[in-house]
Amino acid sequence: MELLEDERIDYLIQDEAIRIIQSPSVFSYSLDAVLLANFTYMPINKGNVLDLCTGNGAIPLLLSNRTHGNLTGLEIQPRLVDMAKRSVELNHLTDQISILEGDLTKRHSALPQSFYDVVTCNPPYFETKHVTQHNENEHLTIARHEVCCTLSQVIEACKLYVKPGGKVSLVHRPERLVDILHYFRLYRLEPKRLQFVYPKRGKEANMLLIEGTRDGKSGLKVLDPLYIYDESGSYTEEVRHIIYGE
Amino acid sequence: MELLEDERIDYLIQDEAIRIIQSPSVFSYSLDAVLLANFTYMPINKGNVLDLCTGNGAIPLLLSNRTHGNLTGLEIQPRLVDMAKRSVELNHLTDQISILEGDLTKRHSALPQSFYDVVTCNPPYFETKHVTQHNENEHLTIARHEVCCTLSQVIEACKLYVKPGGKVSLVHRPERLVDILHYFRLYRLEPKRLQFVYPKRGKEANMLLIEGTRDGKSGLKVLDPLYIYDESGSYTEEVRHIIYGE
Repeated sequence: MELLEDERIDYLIQDEAIRIIQSPSVFSYSLDAVLLANFTYMPINKGNVLDLCTGNGAIPLLLSNRTHGNLTGLEIQPRLVDMAKRSVELNHLTDQISILEGDLTKRHSALPQSFYDVVTCNPPYFETKHVTQHNENEHLTIARHEVCCTLSQVIEACKLYVKPGGKVSLVHRPERLVDILHYFRLYRLEPKRLQFVYPKRGKEANMLLIEGTRDGKSGLKVLDPLYIYDESGSYTEEVRHIIYGE
Repeated sequence: MELLEDERIDYLIQDEAIRIIQSPSVFSYSLDAVLLANFTYMPINKGNVLDLCTGNGAIPLLLSNRTHGNLTGLEIQPRLVDMAKRSVELNHLTDQISILEGDLTKRHSALPQSFYDVVTCNPPYFETKHVTQHNENEHLTIARHEVCCTLSQVIEACKLYVKPGGKVSLVHRPERLVDILHYFRLYRLEPKRLQFVYPKRGKEANMLLIEGTRDGKSGLKVLDPLYIYDESGSYTEEVRHIIYGE
């Protein structure tokens, strides 16, 4: 497998030996993607799953460990599409995972509407209005800031592709909870499961995981909190289990 | 102090010796009221605070321990208004606490609009559509079920009475989070602080505390979770501190 510039190959899942091409200057997956892939409902034997804003493909690669269904990743940045495709080849997963280049705010001819059992997304978090707040690196800016798509557009796209009764899972920041729930309702994705992630005991939440059902009945469950670090600053048992399967 | 039927006098706050008239067949305050009174922002030296659905007046009585401001409770059930008024007298708090009989869905001539620094409410939780689901006891039914007021009407009333920049605090169930945030936004009460209450570690949340600011800027904080019981089934240290000040 040819690597470009500062790219490297990391283990994405240790035991199952899934590997992923990363680059500090272009894109590296974060714990957020790992937690979303763990949190989301996943059909085991068959089905169709779409990951929007797939980046270097971390979420479809992680999900390939949980389902025999078809996985599709959509990414707007050609450089990341290329990285993700090479990671899929590297893991001999081309039969299961397709990576497409495209803009989620526009119709994509290869993506059927109201079709997917599950749509996942780890979108850009930051609603920055001023260009000066952007990261100077364009690749990282697009991945982190709402430059190419807003929260509303992300959730509208989830709605467009998920089938009635299908599920949409997102990871985001708690500051945006009110907006997220607003757009979920607006696009008829009824929120069903919500989990807050806390860096440690006694701190405010800094991440949230949410799953909604298209055209679902109301009735939200707020799951038990997930703490990342224990008092000694090590990963908690729960997080070690999610990351390493320990 | 004359007591009716099965009424009894309980200590509401042990140390400060505030007492409250309760009755198992009419109304007894719950932990929910105690947690709301602890959670809500409170001006210390002066100000005006309104508690909607005040029941037997537990929240104004609890808040009298946190503020020198004026406290008003509004309650629709004459029987509970009478209990609350007698508890206020019992504690010699008639200069600080006023209890009014009234329906929050209608204008009340004694309550000035856009006036209060803080509006609190521990409303009926259950959105029951069928009369068979109601409690056979009418007093308890009105306190627990949306018979006399809906969630939307409660939040609309909070908005009506709170001043611009003032705060609204509610205790409710997590199942209704999506509706609560929807109505807070609709009535321009921007959610600022949200805390989930869990019966114990590893369980889903069964209560939420929320505070919004009228006409406030967006930016929600999700506070660290509050656990009621520890592994041994005793109150956690945090809850003992809230209830007993220990």
